[in-house]
Order: sequence, then structure tokens, then C-alpha cells
Amino acid sequence: MEQKYLRKLLEDVAEGRLDVDSAVLKLKLQPFEDLGFAKIDHHRGIRQGEAEVIYGAGKTPEQIAKIAERLLAGGQETVLITRMTPQAADYVKKTLPLTYYETGKIGIAGKMPEPDTSSAVVVASGGTSDMPVAEEAALTAQALGSRVIRLYDVGVAGIHRLLSHAEEIMNAKVIIAVAGMEGALASVIGGLADCPVIAVPTSVGYGASFGGLSALLSMLNSCASGVSVVNIDNGFGAGYLANMINHI
Amino acid sequence: MEQKYLRKLLEDVAEGRLDVDSAVLKLKLQPFEDLGFAKIDHHRGIRQGEAEVIYGAGKTPEQIAKIAERLLAGGQETVLITRMTPQAADYVKKTLPLTYYETGKIGIAGKMPEPDTSSAVVVASGGTSDMPVAEEAALTAQALGSRVIRLYDVGVAGIHRLLSHAEEIMNAKVIIAVAGMEGALASVIGGLADCPVIAVPTSVGYGASFGGLSALLSMLNSCASGVSVVNIDNGFGAGYLANMINHI
Amino acid sequence: MEQKYLRKLLEDVAEGRLDVDSAVLKLKLQPFEDLGFAKIDHHRGIRQGEAEVIYGAGKTPEQIAKIAERLLAGGQETVLITRMTPQAADYVKKTLPLTYYETGKIGIAGKMPEPDTSSAVVVASGGTSDMPVAEEAALTAQALGSRVIRLYDVGVAGIHRLLSHAEEIMNAKVIIAVAGMEGALASVIGGLADCPVIAVPTSVGYGASFGGLSALLSMLNSCASGVSVVNIDNGFGAGYLANMINHI
Amino acid sequence: MEQKYLRKLLEDVAEGRLDVDSAVLKLKLQPFEDLGFAKIDHHRGIRQGEAEVIYGAGKTPEQIAKIAERLLAGGQETVLITRMTPQAADYVKKTLPLTYYETGKIGIAGKMPEPDTSSAVVVASGGTSDMPVAEEAALTAQALGSRVIRLYDVGVAGIHRLLSHAEEIMNAKVIIAVAGMEGALASVIGGLADCPVIAVPTSVGYGASFGGLSALLSMLNSCASGVSVVNIDNGFGAGYLANMINHI
Amino acid sequence: MEQKYLRKLLEDVAEGRLDVDSAVLKLKLQPFEDLGFAKIDHHRGIRQGEAEVIYGAGKTPEQIAKIAERLLAGGQETVLITRMTPQAADYVKKTLPLTYYETGKIGIAGKMPEPDTSSAVVVASGGTSDMPVAEEAALTAQALGSRVIRLYDVGVAGIHRLLSHAEEIMNAKVIIAVAGMEGALASVIGGLADCPVIAVPTSVGYGASFGGLSALLSMLNSCASGVSVVNIDNGFGAGYLANMINHI
Amino acid sequence: MEQKYLRKLLEDVAEGRLDVDSAVLKLKLQPFEDLGFAKIDHHRGIRQGEAEVIYGAGKTPEQIAKIAERLLAGGQETVLITRMTPQAADYVKKTLPLTYYETGKIGIAGKMPEPDTSSAVVVASGGTSDMPVAEEAALTAQALGSRVIRLYDVGVAGIHRLLSHAEEIMNAKVIIAVAGMEGALASVIGGLADCPVIAVPTSVGYGASFGGLSALLSMLNSCASGVSVVNIDNGFGAGYLANMINHI
Amino acid sequence: MEQKYLRKLLEDVAEGRLDVDSAVLKLKLQPFEDLGFAKIDHHRGIRQGEAEVIYGAGKTPEQIAKIAERLLAGGQETVLITRMTPQAADYVKKTLPLTYYETGKIGIAGKMPEPDTSSAVVVASGGTSDMPVAEEAALTAQALGSRVIRLYDVGVAGIHRLLSHAEEIMNAKVIIAVAGMEGALASVIGGLADCPVIAVPTSVGYGASFGGLSALLSMLNSCASGVSVVNIDNGFGAGYLANMINHI
Amino acid sequence: MEQKYLRKLLEDVAEGRLDVDSAVLKLKLQPFEDLGFAKIDHHRGIRQGEAEVIYGAGKTPEQIAKIAERLLAGGQETVLITRMTPQAADYVKKTLPLTYYETGKIGIAGKMPEPDTSSAVVVASGGTSDMPVAEEAALTAQALGSRVIRLYDVGVAGIHRLLSHAEEIMNAKVIIAVAGMEGALASVIGGLADCPVIAVPTSVGYGASFGGLSALLSMLNSCASGVSVVNIDNGFGAGYLANMINHI
Repeated sequence: MEQKYLRKLLEDVAEGRLDVDSAVLKLKLQPFEDLGFAKIDHHRGIRQGEAEVIYGAGKTPEQIAKIAERLLAGGQETVLITRMTPQAADYVKKTLPLTYYETGKIGIAGKMPEPDTSSAVVVASGGTSDMPVAEEAALTAQALGSRVIRLYDVGVAGIHRLLSHAEEIMNAKVIIAVAGMEGALASVIGGLADCPVIAVPTSVGYGASFGGLSALLSMLNSCASGVSVVNIDNGFGAGYLANMINHI
Repeated sequence: MEQKYLRKLLEDVAEGRLDVDSAVLKLKLQPFEDLGFAKIDHHRGIRQGEAEVIYGAGKTPEQIAKIAERLLAGGQETVLITRMTPQAADYVKKTLPLTYYETGKIGIAGKMPEPDTSSAVVVASGGTSDMPVAEEAALTAQALGSRVIRLYDVGVAGIHRLLSHAEEIMNAKVIIAVAGMEGALASVIGGLADCPVIAVPTSVGYGASFGGLSALLSMLNSCASGVSVVNIDNGFGAGYLANMINHI
Repeated sequence: MEQKYLRKLLEDVAEGRLDVDSAVLKLKLQPFEDLGFAKIDHHRGIRQGEAEVIYGAGKTPEQIAKIAERLLAGGQETVLITRMTPQAADYVKKTLPLTYYETGKIGIAGKMPEPDTSSAVVVASGGTSDMPVAEEAALTAQALGSRVIRLYDVGVAGIHRLLSHAEEIMNAKVIIAVAGMEGALASVIGGLADCPVIAVPTSVGYGASFGGLSALLSMLNSCASGVSVVNIDNGFGAGYLANMINHI
Repeated sequence: MEQKYLRKLLEDVAEGRLDVDSAVLKLKLQPFEDLGFAKIDHHRGIRQGEAEVIYGAGKTPEQIAKIAERLLAGGQETVLITRMTPQAADYVKKTLPLTYYETGKIGIAGKMPEPDTSSAVVVASGGTSDMPVAEEAALTAQALGSRVIRLYDVGVAGIHRLLSHAEEIMNAKVIIAVAGMEGALASVIGGLADCPVIAVPTSVGYGASFGGLSALLSMLNSCASGVSVVNIDNGFGAGYLANMINHI
Repeated sequence: MEQKYLRKLLEDVAEGRLDVDSAVLKLKLQPFEDLGFAKIDHHRGIRQGEAEVIYGAGKTPEQIAKIAERLLAGGQETVLITRMTPQAADYVKKTLPLTYYETGKIGIAGKMPEPDTSSAVVVASGGTSDMPVAEEAALTAQALGSRVIRLYDVGVAGIHRLLSHAEEIMNAKVIIAVAGMEGALASVIGGLADCPVIAVPTSVGYGASFGGLSALLSMLNSCASGVSVVNIDNGFGAGYLANMINHI
Repeated sequence: MEQKYLRKLLEDVAEGRLDVDSAVLKLKLQPFEDLGFAKIDHHRGIRQGEAEVIYGAGKTPEQIAKIAERLLAGGQETVLITRMTPQAADYVKKTLPLTYYETGKIGIAGKMPEPDTSSAVVVASGGTSDMPVAEEAALTAQALGSRVIRLYDVGVAGIHRLLSHAEEIMNAKVIIAVAGMEGALASVIGGLADCPVIAVPTSVGYGASFGGLSALLSMLNSCASGVSVVNIDNGFGAGYLANMINHI
Repeated sequence: MEQKYLRKLLEDVAEGRLDVDSAVLKLKLQPFEDLGFAKIDHHRGIRQGEAEVIYGAGKTPEQIAKIAERLLAGGQETVLITRMTPQAADYVKKTLPLTYYETGKIGIAGKMPEPDTSSAVVVASGGTSDMPVAEEAALTAQALGSRVIRLYDVGVAGIHRLLSHAEEIMNAKVIIAVAGMEGALASVIGGLADCPVIAVPTSVGYGASFGGLSALLSMLNSCASGVSVVNIDNGFGAGYLANMINHI
Repeated sequence: MEQKYLRKLLEDVAEGRLDVDSAVLKLKLQPFEDLGFAKIDHHRGIRQGEAEVIYGAGKTPEQIAKIAERLLAGGQETVLITRMTPQAADYVKKTLPLTYYETGKIGIAGKMPEPDTSSAVVVASGGTSDMPVAEEAALTAQALGSRVIRLYDVGVAGIHRLLSHAEEIMNAKVIIAVAGMEGALASVIGGLADCPVIAVPTSVGYGASFGGLSALLSMLNSCASGVSVVNIDNGFGAGYLANMINHI
């Protein structure tokens, strides 16, 4: 594609349809288009309707509202806002259509899309305190078009709860395993499943959990194959990656 | 399925074909068969011809040879042996067909399969000292059937080397980014690519690299979306997961 | 016992007192009763009167009140609520019989049981600031039926205070040693006692105590035999385990 | 008792059978006898036949042989030697009856006792590389008189292997869970079992296992009740404690 | 001295001035007086006028007032209260004579004693933010009877400030070096001085000072002889120890 | 210079223009002038007009105002105040000419100097949340006389944004690279630039960024030559050093 | 420059001197030349005679010899080889002119250049065990053309040794401060000097030096302005950066 | 004294006995004598006969022999060599009178002095594996003139062993407490003693002792007053400081 663009431009120059100055300018102004590494942005630009993401932490309600408005105005159907406070949600709701998911601190400006895949992202979490991170992951994947199945409160200390969902686990295309404390969920699920497992350590715990370090190390050392790990509490990152895999 | 099994057993009891004691025993002895989580092994069992893996570290040459021989005898066409010493390779070669890849410390007993996918796993690494881990990853993915493209010595301190491969990076189905020291490679590639990136920190470095901790933390904190991380030096884990995604 | 239940069910089927469909349903509805690993839950269910535990941290007073009410209504005589705030206690007291132990942040809905063992759990603690954790342990063991002997303020820097209780220490069936700062109490008690010692590091301290890490490492490295360790500040875990051993 | 001793001494003084200087000396020289904390040693002294332990690490074969010989000569029937090298074993065998268990690096001088309990210590371990620590634990408990059941290679990544031993786990009086890497085994077993679980993290692993830190933190954060932890690779400590509980 | 007490008691018994029962009672009631290790307490008791210490952190103003009152009533002339809030000081002042030193958060109930030594404790500190810890140390030593010389703001980054006090440093009997951040002060002073140097790392700093860890490690690794270290921010400990040495 | 001073003083003594007592006093009072290491202060004193710095953290508005006033009164044209709160700025503004830069928390009392160099300090930062630290660095360098070029939001995950500024990077005399999270910016810039790069890790991030540790380690392990590192969030230190190099 | 190149190429196309296919190829083959970020390499290429560096660690003597030979053959006058073993030096000496500096493990193939600056890089180090790192730094700077002044064994514990070199320190253009253990040297020098100070922590020490962590943290927290830090033992990095500054 | 020297010099100048040039030279050549901070060296110089110390680690036998020889030749009666290998001892013995203490790796060239104090340094250690460090401390103190009392194998897990030495502990002038693993010994001794206690953590232990970190933290957090800490395994530092206190 870049080759085509380049060839076209050079042919225009060769045949006098484009003067040298304009050609120089074109190549200077869009310096990356001719290389290929700018594809991403272009790529993203044309996938109309897919969610653009606003990282809500550290932004004022006004800033969030302004960005979301501009994106919606630009034709975006879904705007995903992560780490959004209830206060910010209240503010944005005044001027924009917004659904706020309190547990996951996720706001969806515009409309939550229907799943465009038959395969599903399974989001499993250990305890009820892990739910905020699990919901951040689940809603991110949903907002990006994935069908999501939630398996919450399936911690390894009551292994039968997890096993009663063996069917869903084995049929998943990709699984997100969210757990704090000892983080063993990822290994057990990794052993049951035949698909990629994205492990999300959470900062849930106290004492020697050291803010999620315990779960993080545990997951990195998982003896099950097919498991990889994202940052502590990074539900968004897991949901984004899971959706990417789910859309392959 | 489980319902059928249960119903059949109960009907046998109801109609006297099975006495109560035997029924109790059956339910006690095979308590998990009715749930399905044993499917996996069965699943794996039927996928004849795919590589079985032998973790070579801590096994004697004799043990490796014996296991590999049994697997090949059982119809396995490819046996992947990781963390294999040259000594072990020499020993196994005496009795079995073995190709030994010294850099990645990988042995392939039987034959290395032809790629069965058109899409490719790209393995990128920062410096020449990261090559052993990169090769462990690359050969693992190959042994499991993936086509692999290697981009070595594309460290971020000479960003043009990496950018000259922008095409391969943007066309990859999944990328493995292997780097020690500051581990920045994963973030830069994550920013260029539109596919899952599996980051492998290596223990390459000295001083404040703390045996790979620096690269590990760096990769976990990657600001690029679509990046997940495996254990330090875990080339096998990355190759296994990448192949899994490549075969979706 | 589950065997009894299973046998009974199968006999009913065999003798026509129960039709196959109803039996399948029964087994489906309580899918774990037919498995060995669900024993625990059943087990717990039938030990009427023993405390069920509510982990109060992160629950609203309303949630705590509702769960406690349901458990009491279900026949439970004692409901142990850990990490309960005074506010939650005030709220619950309005509708339920509740005794609140402020130091240990423990609430007992229903009635605190009489000890059902002659042997005792000894709870020893180093300084007055360790008392909240010590009380969490002591009240947990009490609520589960153990007789408890408290030896507080017996820190190793004044060894004679500890030694004056040598008698109790040597007669204990199990000892909980609670200490922050340097955590040496566990080792000294471990050397005196002839029974299991459960060490609980606390986050009491400052500077290089690093939130309890100092005491934790100290206890894990105890040169006394018979000592094991639970998480920092985990009074509940120690009390639960001590009661388990005390009831053997 | 101490009162008796004191009274006797004072009566001797009162009645002139003991002069003041001698009485002062007696009280100064044996200041602790009247407190009782020296009982322990006496206590231990009279339990003839129980294993005395020699910590073999850092001792020469000659030193080990000499101590063992003296203990056997003193009437000891079993002498447990931990962390014993094969070289030390060969040396000791020349002069003493010794059985050497290579995997656990345990030597038993004299004879391994028959179990004197009907209840059993269950020793479960995650992978084959954890076996040395598991065997140190198992043989320690055996040498102290416990019946031991070994469940090896029941790592959580293949949960069905563990569950197929649910019966043994649920009938155990005390369980030792030995695991490296992510250390999840303790939590899963803790959820299945109704008895004390002693978790032993091992230094097995690489990279982010940080010499056993990962497993250690994981086990300390176990969400299962009844779990406590000993030092990394401390099989002896776990075996000693388990035997103590098994003999209650 | 305890010997005297013991001898006196035994003589009373020997000579019939004290009956055996009363003697037993006396020894039972004060079980440690007859032992060597209780000397300290007795010792302290008789050194009338020396400061008893109240650790103010975590105590209510009421508790502090009550303890201080009792100590003063018991004849104590100086009561040292550490980590005392201004609020607590205001409260105590209502009923007791109290001087409050705000920077060091030290309260002196009763009167600050005159120095009873000619030799001095030198307290040197790096920056103005280290003054609270330095003052805690200085006032502690003063309250215990030492003459104190303060050298504040003599951080190593302006070495001439420190060197202009070379005289005081070389004439000190013991020096307390208080510093946060890089903690180099202890080494430089240790090189100049010929007396014991007690290093106190402070939590002053940000970023990679990690709450005082940087200064702590720096001081432990001091290449100067004669330097030892106390806990981060432990001004009291340093002052107590310095006074001990100053009184030798 | 010192020699001159010394010689002059001694000649004055030799020739009777200065009596011995006065000479002793002079040498005692300014004990370092004859050594040379006091040059710095003198040096600084004579560079009239250059910014003196007030570290605002932990100082009251009143204290800041008083120091700034004295410095301005003394002829200083620019007073740089770092880590200044908006409240302090409001207070100081009442009595002194002050420009307050909110993002960098920098106040300039007096007037911001014109750049006195043609070469520039380039300040590059990864994300918008790193701007406070970047601005602290940029304004510090400006206040000390440097021309500053800001390249913000050029994080490595969108490498084209950084590359579009390749010209500025390659023409810089010194570059400050400010980044949190994975801190890869320093390595990429270090690879592009031919001048010293001062890396400033920031505490921006969450989870495994551990308060800036991740970025710090990453930058210390940079595989690019010419990179050195200052403390986490130490924008001032970087700006000061960059200005120093820029003025060479 | 790039504009000129681009314009020239486009003019050639416009005027028929270059056909479109060749132009596309040129732009594809050298994709970065038109952006500018490839300047560095070009830049370096033209600075004939400056040292190219070979990182000797992990390279065989044969590899080192081959690379050095090629560089010398290509016109390079000085080839700097770091972390070179004596064995490698012996091997290379057989075929190439090589001077080997044992302490710094530095080899210079070709000839060590004469200094091309009048200003000097001062290399100061704390103790004799820090000399290998100090020499790596000093020789690197020398090999790149800097005049170097060595001040060894000027540790802060004997501050007078350092102060006797105050003249050199104050006249330096840039200083490298090399120290292990408590790493205080950087702060003291930073306080004396008026130029950039590059601090190099070394892994010299034991116990709580934790492989150089103590010195590293100490240097990062230096309260002296103008100090920045490189990785532990990274003498080369410091020498490279110092030379860069020395050549400004 | 410096004043006297200065005054004398100035008077000589004033009265023409010394010309200006010579005076300048004198002040330049001995720049520190007039300040006072060089006193130490002078001080040490005149204390003939006291041990000079050679840190043997990293020095060749030849180097050690040469330094020791020179010191003895210079009139030194005792030369203390620490961390000396048996090989170095054998070598030095060939030419010099040397007593080698293998456990503490200490060599005494010349003769071990008789104690010149009646008071004693008590060296207490936890286990036999701590003896090398304890001996380094004890022999250092001895070599510097102190009387030393050794209390070895008095670990806290057998508290009666320690208490049976209560007399020595309470009569000590200064105590060195050497312990690895949990490091509790320092706290217990600190509670018993009334004199300064210097705690030496050792690297003895395994697993979570993390090379002495556990003991180090434990000792820093000691709740006993009068305790300070030196680096891990730093027996020399403790012995040096203890001797310093013992000679006050």
C-alpha cells in the first residue's frame, strides 16, 4: 500500500502532474505514511464504530465530557471511559448519553455495542473483592465487541465452584483470570483450559500480599502453559488483549 | 452427557441391574468423570502428531532419552526437548534421530514439522545476548507447527533497526518481544503492532537489572495495549502461547 | 456420612421409593454432594451451633446485618464477624443480638459458645499494640468453641514476664504467638513449648519493620521446631487453625 | 513444685541445716530451676527412643558419625540425620547401621520406627522437582513415628490428578503441601481438607520465583482457612510439626 | 545488691525474724527479685530521679496524663514522653507541670534534669527536615542526664559546614549522626571522630529514598569504623544508647 | 587566588600592618578560604542575578515569602521556588512580584530571565501525567538561564510522535527524558541523540510500577550510551544539571 | 539536508534522470535517511579515528579479534574493548597491536589517542576495590580523547584525603565519582564541585550492600545538585558520558 | 593546639624569623594540620603498639605479608589481619610470626596483646554456624586490648542456655550479640543487659533468611533499648566498636 502511494506520487512527479515543491511538502508533512509504521493510526481511523478509550483517572469531569463529546460528534458510536468516578459520570450524563457501571468504574458514552463474535471471552475471578477489576476487564471486552461470560467467586479455595463451570472454561476462546491474594486461579484455569489465559493480579489482600505483588509473582510462575500476565489491577489491559484474541 | 451417565446408572439401580454397593463405589471412585474437566487430557490424547514437550533441566541424559524414545514409539512425530545440554544431546543422538539447536538449548527428537499455518509468529529480540531465550521461543513455536519470523538485534537504542522491519511487525499475527536490561522493546513493538504481543523479560544485564527484574517490571508497566508478560527467561512459555494464538 | 446419604438415595431408587428423574434432579441440584470434595460444606452444615464467619471488611453494615440475620434464622447459634467497625456494630445491634469486642474488632451475633474443650489455646502477644491482632485470634478460637488463655505484654525484651508464664506455655495444646517489630516471641515460645506454635506477625512498628515484613521474616526463620506462620495481622487465620488443632 | 523446693530450702535455713551463704549461692547458681522452664529438656530426656535430630549441613562426616554413635550408644533407637550428603552417608555406613534416603538427603541411623499412630500425615507435592523437600518432610515425620501417605506430582495445573486423591486428602489428620513456583497447591488442598495444612514453599523455579519468594508469598496469602507456612525448603520443620499434630 | 536483699531475707529466716511461710510468699510475690535477670527493673527503680519513658504514640492524652501523674507521684522527678502530639501536651499541661518541645514531639513532665556528666553527646544532623528526629535524640539524652551539643544542618553536600565543627566532633564522647536521603553523614563523621557514632537514618526524602531505606543501607555499609545503626527515625533509641555510653 | 590571599595576609603580618591576634582570628573565622573548597560559595555569591533556589516543600507560605523577599532585596533578580503550593503562591503574590506555574508547582519571584544561551535544553516526556515533573525540570533550566524546548506526549508506545521530533532531538545540547511506567523513553532518545541524556523516572503508574521503581530500573539499565539518571520525580535536579551542561 | 536529498531525488524523477522504479527502491531501501534519525550513524561514520567500542563480555577471543581487525582495517585508529579477559587479550595480541589494562579489563587495539581537550575528566574513587570500575571509566574516556585525572582512594571516611585534592575537583570540567558500600563520595564531591558529577555505584561490599543497591540508592538520593547516576559497575557508561560532556 | 601552631607561625613571620614564602609553603603543604580534622591520624600515630588492621579479603598473600612486615618493622607490636584465608596464613607464616585463628579467619602478626582492661566485652552467639562471625568480633576486640568473654550456642530457642549466663550478661560493659536466622538474640540480651548491645546479623540461614536480611531487620526493630546494629557478617566492625566502648 505504501509502495502504491509512493509510486503514484513519483509517477505524478515524473509526468508533471505534481511539482517538486508540493511533493517535498507531502513527504514532509506526513512523514510516516511512507514508512508503514503509521498504519496503526490509519487502521484505527477507518474502523468506524469501534470504541475509542478515555483513561478517566486524573481527568476532570469537564475534560472527560469534552473528549467524549468530540468523539461521538466525530461519528464514534461507543466511547469507553475507564477509571471513571461516580461524580464524573453524573457530570457527563447531563449532556451526553452515558451508561455508568459502578463496580468496574466504567462509563460507556454512546451505546454499548452488540457482540460481533460468536466466540466468548470468559472472565473468571476469585473473590467478590476482585470484582471491580474483573468488571473493568469484562466491560472493556464488551465495549470492543466481544461476547463475555462472567464466572465470579470461583476462587481456588472452593475448587468445586470453579469445576462446576468446567464446560465454559473449556469452550472459551480466551480467558481472563482475575485474582488477588495468592493468585492461584490462573494456574488452575490454565490447567483446565486449552486457550490463552490472561492473568490479572489484583491488589486485593493485606499483609504479605504487598499490594498485589504476591498474586503477580504467583501468576508469572504459573506452571500451566498458555498463561501470560498483565499489570496489577490492569483490567482494561486484559480486556483489550482478550478482545484482540477473540477477534482473530 | 453426565446426565446420561447418571440416568443410566440410576436406571440400572432401579431395575436391579446394579446393586447399591457397586453404585456407591462407582460414584465414589470416579467422582470427576461426570463433570468434564478430564476432557482436556482426552482432547490432548487425540491430537496425535503434535509435539509433546520434555523439560530437560534437571533430567539426566538417560531419562531424556528414555522418555523421548517412548513418545516416538507411541506414534509421536515430534518431541520437543527444552533446556537440553549439549551433553544430553550427544547422548540422545546415539540412539534417536535428534536435531540439536545449541543457542536455544532445544532438541527436536523425530522431525521438525513443516509450518501448518500461513500466518506467522514474529520473534523480536533486543540484543545478541537475548538470543538464547529468543531461540527457545522461536523453536518452540516451530516445533508446534507455526511459521516463525526472526527479527534479532532490533534493540530500541537503535530504533531504525527496528523500524526497518515495520512491515513484518505490522503483518504478524502474534509477536514475541524478548529483551533484557530495560525491556523497552515490548512497548515500542506494542505501539507499532496491531496484534497480541507476548513480552519475555530476560536475565541479561548486570547491576540494577537484578536478574531480569528491571525488564520484567518495565514490560508489566508497558503503556502499549495488547502486551502481556511471561516469566523471566521463559522462552518456552512465550513460544507455546504464541503458537496457540497463531493457530486460532 | 455422604456415603450414607448416597446409599439411602440409591436404596430408595432400588426399592422404587424414588423415581429416576427425581434422583437425577437431586444429584444435579446439589452437584457436589456426590463428590468427596464437597464433604466440607456438608460437614459444616451439620455441625449446628458452630460459628459461621462473616469477613466484615469491605461490607456495608446493611450487608453484614442481612447475612447475620439469615444465618441466625437458619439455626446458627453463633455468627462470628471479623474486622467489624464500631459503626457496623452499632447498626447491627439495632436488629440483632450482638456483642462487640472493640479491641479485636470482632462481633458475635447470637451467643458466644461455652468452651467445649478442656485443653486450651494460649494466645501470647508481645506488646500492647499487638493486642488487636491477638484479640482477633483469641475471640475467633473462642467463637469456635475453644477455651482460650491470654498472655499479653510478654515481649522478649523483658523475658522474665514471659518466663513467669512458663507453666501455661508448657501445658498448652496449641499456642498463638502474636508479635510485631522483631517478632522474636515465636522463637522463644517455640523453644519453651512442646506443642504447635502458630506465629502471627503484626504490622506494628515503624521504619525498617516495613509493614510487618521484619516480623514475618523473623518468624519464618525461627530456629525453634514446631513453629509455623500465617499472614501479617491474620489473627483470624491463626485462631481458626488453633481451634482446629485444639479440637483434634 | 517450685514452692516445695523453696519451702524446703527456707526450712533448712530456718532450722540451721543450711547456712545463709550456701542458700544464697544455691539461689544464685540455679536461678531457673524454680521456674519450671527447664522442664522441657527433662521432658525430652525421658522420652527414650524418640528420634534425636542431627542437622547434617555444615558438619563433616566424622562429626556426624561421632554424634550419631554417641546417641545410639546412649540408648536412642533412631537417629534422624537431615541434609546429609551421599559422601557423609558412605562414611557413616562404615561404622554404624544407616539407611540413606537419597532424594530427601535423609539418613536414619539405627532403625526407622514402625508408625505408632493409625492416623496419617499426608505429604502432597506439586512437581517432581519438589520431591527432595517433600521427602525430607515425609521421612522426618516417619522417623518420629507417624504413618505417612505420599501424594506426589499432584500440581494444580492438572487439577484432576489432585482430585483423584480427594479421599486421602479428606481423611488426613494433617497435610503437608509442598510446592515451588506459584505455590497454589496449598490453597487448593486447604479448600478440600478439613484438617491443618502445613505449606512448604520450595526454591524450585527460575526468574520471578526469586528463590522461592513467589511460592512463599502465595502460601502466606492463601485464602483457605487452616493453612500455615514454614520457611522455604524447610521440609524438616513441616515434618516435625505435622508429626506433632498427628500425635495429639 | 539483690544479693544483699536475698541475704537479709535468708538471715531473717535463719534467725527466726521471718517465718518460712512469709519468706515463701515474699519470694513468690516478687518472683524475679531473686533472679539475676530482674536486676534491671530493680536497678531502675532505685535510680530515683532518672527519667521513666512513656511512648506516646497510640496513647490517648488521658492515658498519658494518668501514667505521668502516677510516676511523678511515685517520686520520679523527670518523666520523658516521646512521640507526643501537641494536643496531648495541651491536655497534660492542664494538670501536670509539662514542658513540650514541639520539633522533637517530646514532653518532659516534672523537670528537665541538669546534666550530670561533663562529657557530651554530640547530635549532628544533615538537613532541617531531619531536625524532628535529631531533637527526639537530643532531648532523650538530655532527659536522661547527658550534656548535649547540637550540630544541625551540617549535611555532607556542604562539607565545610561540617568541618567547621571538627573540634566538637573530635572532642565528643559519643556522637549521634542523623540523616535522611543518602545518609552519608554517618560515614564522614565516623571518619573524623574517635568515639562511637550512632547513626540514625530518617525517612526524609522522596522517590528512591524508599521511606528511609536508602539512608539505612548507606549507614549499615559505612566504611568508617565505630559506626552502628538504629531503626529509621528512631531518635529515642539513639538518644538512649548515647546517654548509656556517655555515662560509662 | 588563595595563595594571593594568604601571601597578602602574611606580608601584612611581616610588615606589621596586621597584628598576630587579628591574623589568627581571620584564619580561624574563615578556615576554609585557604583551602579552596569554599570557592563554590564565593563563586555563587558573585554570580549576581542568577537564580537562587528555595525548596518549597515543608515550608510555610510565610517562610517562603520572607526568604524570597530577602533574596530579592539583596539584589537577586530571579528567585526560583520549587514544589510550591497554589496557596503559598497566593500568599507570596500579595507582597512580591511572583509568576506561578501551576503544572510544575514552580514560582518565580522577580523576573524569569531571558535565555543567555543559543543552545537548548530539550525536555521530552512520555505522557500527560508526567508533565508536572517535566515542567519542574523545564522551568528550573529556564530560571537558570537556559533556552528550553518542550516535547511532551512523545511516549514510546506511539513512536512516530517521537520520531517527528527527530530534528530537535538531534540538535539538542542536552536532553531531559521524563517518563513513568516503563521508562523506555530514555533509551529510545538515548539511541537517537548524540548528546547527554538525563533520565528522570516519575512515580506515574500503578501496580507493578511500585512508585517509580519500574521506570528507575529501566532507565538505569538503558542500553543507550550517554544516559544518566536522577531520583524519581526529581525534575529540579535534572533541570539544574541540564542547565549546567548547557552553559559549558 | 534531508530536504535537499529529497528535492534532488524528486527533481531527478521530474526531469527523467531517474525512473520511478529506481526512486521507489531508493526510498524503500533507505527508509530512514529522509527523516533525519539516521543521522547518528552517518555522523559517527564520518568521525574517522574515534574509538568504536566492543563489549567484550560474552564474546569469544576469536570474535573479538575478528571485529577489532575489521574495524582497524576500515581505518579506525583506536578500538576500545571493554570487559576483556586476560585470555582474550593474549589471543588478540597474537595478531593485532593491543595494549591491555588489567585492572580495568580494557583492551586498546590500535593506539591510545593523545588527549584532544585541555579540560579534564576527573575520576575519583572510594577504595582500592573500586579501582576496576574506576579504571574502566578512566580508560574509556581516554580512549575517546579526553584528558583524565585519577584521584583514587579518596573515600569519605578519611575526608582529608579527598580535601587535599580540592583543587583538582574544583577545576574539573566533569567528574566521575566511583564508590561502593555507602556511596557517599558522590554527595561530598557534588558539594565541592561546580561541574556535572557522574556517580557510579559499584558492587563492592558485602551483607547489606546487596550487590551495589546500597551505593545506588545513596547516589540517587544525593542532596548535592549536579549529580546523576549510571548503572552499578557501569564504568564504561560513565566514561562515555563524561567524555561527551568534556568535548562540549 | 592548632591555634598555638598558627600563632607561633604568625609570630615567626611577624618577627622575621620566617619569611613569607616559607610560611605560604608550610600552610599549603600541610593544609589540614591547622584545622584539626587531621588529628585522628596523628592521634593514631602516637598510640604505638595498638593493632593496625589489614582487611585481608581481595589481597594476595604477598600483599598481606608485605604490609604486615612493614607495620611490624615500624614498631607495631600487633597486626590484626581479617578475612584471611588459610593459604594466606601459610604464606605469611614463612616469614613472619603469625598466629592464625581458623574459625574467625583472623591472623595476628606479632603478638596478641594482654587485655589492658578489667571490664570485658561479652560476645554471645546463637548457633555454631554463627561462630566464624562471632570469632571475628571476639578476636578483633582482643587484638585491640579488650578482655573478652565468649558465650556461644546460647540461641533463644533454648532460652535456659542463655539465662544460665545471666550473670556474665549483667556484668558486661558492652555485649556483642551475633545471630543469623531470626536474629532474636539481640532483643533478649538487650532486655537482660544494662549496657550497650551491638547486634551483628549473620548470613547464616536459608530460604527466607535472604542472606541475612531477616536477622538484620529483626535486630533493627528490636524493642529493647540500648541495641544498635552493624552490617551483616561484620564481626570486625562490632569488635572494633565494642573495644572502643570498653576502653572508655
